[in-house]
Amino acid sequence: SLNSVLLYIVPLHSLYSQELAEFEKLLDQVKISEGALKTDGFGENPFFHCLVAEVPSELSNPLGSTVVGYGLYYFTYSTWTGRNVYLEDIYVMPKYRGQGIGSKLIKKVAEVALENGCSQFRLAVLDWNQSAMDFYKARGAKDLTLAEGWRFFRFDTEAMRELVKK
Amino acid sequence: SLNSVLLYIVPLHSLYSQELAEFEKLLDQVKISEGALKTDGFGENPFFHCLVAEVPSELSNPLGSTVVGYGLYYFTYSTWTGRNVYLEDIYVMPKYRGQGIGSKLIKKVAEVALENGCSQFRLAVLDWNQSAMDFYKARGAKDLTLAEGWRFFRFDTEAMRELVKK
Repeated sequence: SLNSVLLYIVPLHSLYSQELAEFEKLLDQVKISEGALKTDGFGENPFFHCLVAEVPSELSNPLGSTVVGYGLYYFTYSTWTGRNVYLEDIYVMPKYRGQGIGSKLIKKVAEVALENGCSQFRLAVLDWNQSAMDFYKARGAKDLTLAEGWRFFRFDTEAMRELVKK
Repeated sequence: SLNSVLLYIVPLHSLYSQELAEFEKLLDQVKISEGALKTDGFGENPFFHCLVAEVPSELSNPLGSTVVGYGLYYFTYSTWTGRNVYLEDIYVMPKYRGQGIGSKLIKKVAEVALENGCSQFRLAVLDWNQSAMDFYKARGAKDLTLAEGWRFFRFDTEAMRELVKK
């Protein structure tokens, strides 16, 4: 049942991040190993935190695992408002959608944010993913690209190497 | 001279973040104290890191300080590419612009990113700030909102409180 979905932090199973990348049509950007995820997320100064959604064992996924979704977040900072949380990934396996698991993950991230004195909870959404945009807006999120004009910029490794040469 | 501009990490002077907010026409969003900046940036597990641009004392700013700009960044994470750096703020006081200080700050952030095994250096730019967008593009950054459709979403404190009540 829905109530038995547990959310807690465990090592991230890298498979799920790959499924998410495939859905987002950006699979060619996946260049990470499970080892790197473990080192970076579960050492002394973790680079990220992870929530997983688990179902009871009788509902386990085709891989035999009860973990059917996850949310990966980290703490960020604004010199205007202080501590914030950024949700980098949120994913629920297709067959487990429509049962409120995504909502529970979002709710848990908001709880973590408030408990840690964060004033904002940020995330990024792809503009062709209307259902995701509707999902967040329905829960009170504001589209800042639309409202204020914020755009994402990124230097990739090669561009950074060129920068430091100058 | 340009070569004597030093970049190193010192406590952030909150004045500069306020000047930046004013420039970005979002001054009403500044709700932080200098004390919070010190606690969050310079404790055992800092929420952010800060670079400042200093000029020689004979060129000190109207406040009598040699600090005329800053860059504030933190480490983030992607399950596709691993460790990244996010530059939250970059600011140079108006009278010190056009001398390459911004470029040096950007270059230093790229150095820090590469030294820490980061594969990306991300930032956000306001779409009406054409000179900033041109500045980053000229240095090899990619506009991901344009190229892939990424949009910024944000839950503010009140929206988070509503979320956790559900």
